[in-house]
Amino acid sequence: MEPIRWQETSLSLLDQRKLPLQVIWNDYTDYRDIISAIRTLEVRGAPSIGVAAAYAFCLAGLEFQNKPNFAANMKKAKEELAASRPTAVNLFWALDRMERCLDKNGAEPSCVPALIQEAKELDRENLEMNRAMSRYGAETVPMKAHILTHCNAGPIATGGIGTALGVIIEAFEQGKVEMVYVDETRPLLQGSRLTAWELQQHGVPATLICDNMAATLMNQGKIDQVLLGCDRMAANGDFANKIGTYSVAVNAHYHGVPFYTVLPSSTIDLTIADGSGIVVEQRDPQEVRTMYGVQTAPTDIPVYNPAFDVTPHKLLTGAITEKGVVYNPYKENLAKLFG
Amino acid sequence: MEPIRWQETSLSLLDQRKLPLQVIWNDYTDYRDIISAIRTLEVRGAPSIGVAAAYAFCLAGLEFQNKPNFAANMKKAKEELAASRPTAVNLFWALDRMERCLDKNGAEPSCVPALIQEAKELDRENLEMNRAMSRYGAETVPMKAHILTHCNAGPIATGGIGTALGVIIEAFEQGKVEMVYVDETRPLLQGSRLTAWELQQHGVPATLICDNMAATLMNQGKIDQVLLGCDRMAANGDFANKIGTYSVAVNAHYHGVPFYTVLPSSTIDLTIADGSGIVVEQRDPQEVRTMYGVQTAPTDIPVYNPAFDVTPHKLLTGAITEKGVVYNPYKENLAKLFG
Repeated sequence: MEPIRWQETSLSLLDQRKLPLQVIWNDYTDYRDIISAIRTLEVRGAPSIGVAAAYAFCLAGLEFQNKPNFAANMKKAKEELAASRPTAVNLFWALDRMERCLDKNGAEPSCVPALIQEAKELDRENLEMNRAMSRYGAETVPMKAHILTHCNAGPIATGGIGTALGVIIEAFEQGKVEMVYVDETRPLLQGSRLTAWELQQHGVPATLICDNMAATLMNQGKIDQVLLGCDRMAANGDFANKIGTYSVAVNAHYHGVPFYTVLPSSTIDLTIADGSGIVVEQRDPQEVRTMYGVQTAPTDIPVYNPAFDVTPHKLLTGAITEKGVVYNPYKENLAKLFG
Repeated sequence: MEPIRWQETSLSLLDQRKLPLQVIWNDYTDYRDIISAIRTLEVRGAPSIGVAAAYAFCLAGLEFQNKPNFAANMKKAKEELAASRPTAVNLFWALDRMERCLDKNGAEPSCVPALIQEAKELDRENLEMNRAMSRYGAETVPMKAHILTHCNAGPIATGGIGTALGVIIEAFEQGKVEMVYVDETRPLLQGSRLTAWELQQHGVPATLICDNMAATLMNQGKIDQVLLGCDRMAANGDFANKIGTYSVAVNAHYHGVPFYTVLPSSTIDLTIADGSGIVVEQRDPQEVRTMYGVQTAPTDIPVYNPAFDVTPHKLLTGAITEKGVVYNPYKENLAKLFG
């Protein structure tokens, strides 16, 4: 299911917070509402955030095209959108691309149709990258595979057919996948709520587990491969992804389970040398202290709640991109493909 | 707070499912209600289960003392109690001890006062073992320690001052503990609900995290030691504990963090050679699919939900018991102390 639909003068978003119990679409005409939607995870997943931000920039264009100071207003809108979340680099990548389009067209009100064209093109390219990743990634999947995934890197996270889930769905269609174990992914349960639901929709056999059960399955020899997404990859292959990814990586390493991340090139940030340069967002303690409004911990207990963690490239078997699978040495190989 | 109070003709249990929002005590006179309380986790934690079962056997004695077939009824009550949960060995240990007391006293109705005396003695010894473990364990804690714990091994889990939490509280009182990181412990959140609350009650600085965040803290050098409980230890030191313990163990090993379990000798089962002989309870999928009655996953998604996992002794730095800290080789050293 596409999570983002451009409607020429408005943007429809699938409310990912309500899934799987409710399938609700919200229509927005104000780019500021898209900032809020990104911040509150109504739209989430690095590639989807990028696509949503590109269309939000178009909404800003439609709003400002009949007002004075078009160029200044658009620059300000870009900065506001860029401040919505700090980790996923696709957000900045998409906004930089939209800004280049704005500048190339004189940063004048008349350029709005060009902006919309550019956002649609970015959306279409994203979809194509998803398809290419799925094909390359499926080649890494063994027959009768039992796969572990963490968080949600499916259609609704990517605006396409999915990065990690795209690979899994493609491999399933090739007859290779016997079972997918889905980490529920605390605290916001993107695994239970979104990944389990998306796999069911595609008919892929799935079993839900708590994050802390994955190691035990590996110890029992029940996991053949780990496939998960990425929010930002540094030039040396270190990468940020949903909190818990690092723990999965250490366990995969210990148990000799191949561990892959799946990402479009828009998620690669060659301006950052290594993982230490990636800003990790800290989120509201209430996400851990409460669940659907029900309190599950003492009200005033301090909480550590990073949205992401950084996995060093040494724990990575390969990075599946739209141009092929990148292996160690990542620094050289990423530069060769994307430099 | 003591979770179990013998009231001469009834047994009061602190309802651990309601904490920390509600502190509710339930009074029982029927041993069958204690079976249900163990099964539904109203009373939980390996040592507490043992103490509760011993008192439940006394309730059976009070019920059957004025009925025919006392001995047969008591044997049946013992079997029913033993079938309540499969993993924690303290349950069987306590019931075997009560049965020996029954047999020693002729298995006649007149032996009920002796049974009650025996259960009280078992309860008192359990408390003393807690104190001894705390003292031995505190010696392993470095100054300015940042400690990670998983699940709940505190006063309410043990009927004493706690096994792992007993060590932490004792070390805190000795001025050694700077911070305790508390794994929330999915799916039933014994960490958020019980451990966070108990540490607060003792004034120990605590920070709540999701289970999947512990590895990242270790990677940042923020964890000096892991201390957690045990539900059954085999003769070679392999041990079952709350699901997620194994993942913590692998991560502690990878990051060079000392990893200790704290357990009274009643948790050691020398009749089992290694961890492969420990039965692991599988629990209701709804524990993972729902949270406080709110559905968080597709209704029909298959779930893997073991209550425990088994950690091999090679990942264990030491086992803290009431007779001292046991180190590798566990088989020899456990036999020496407890054989």
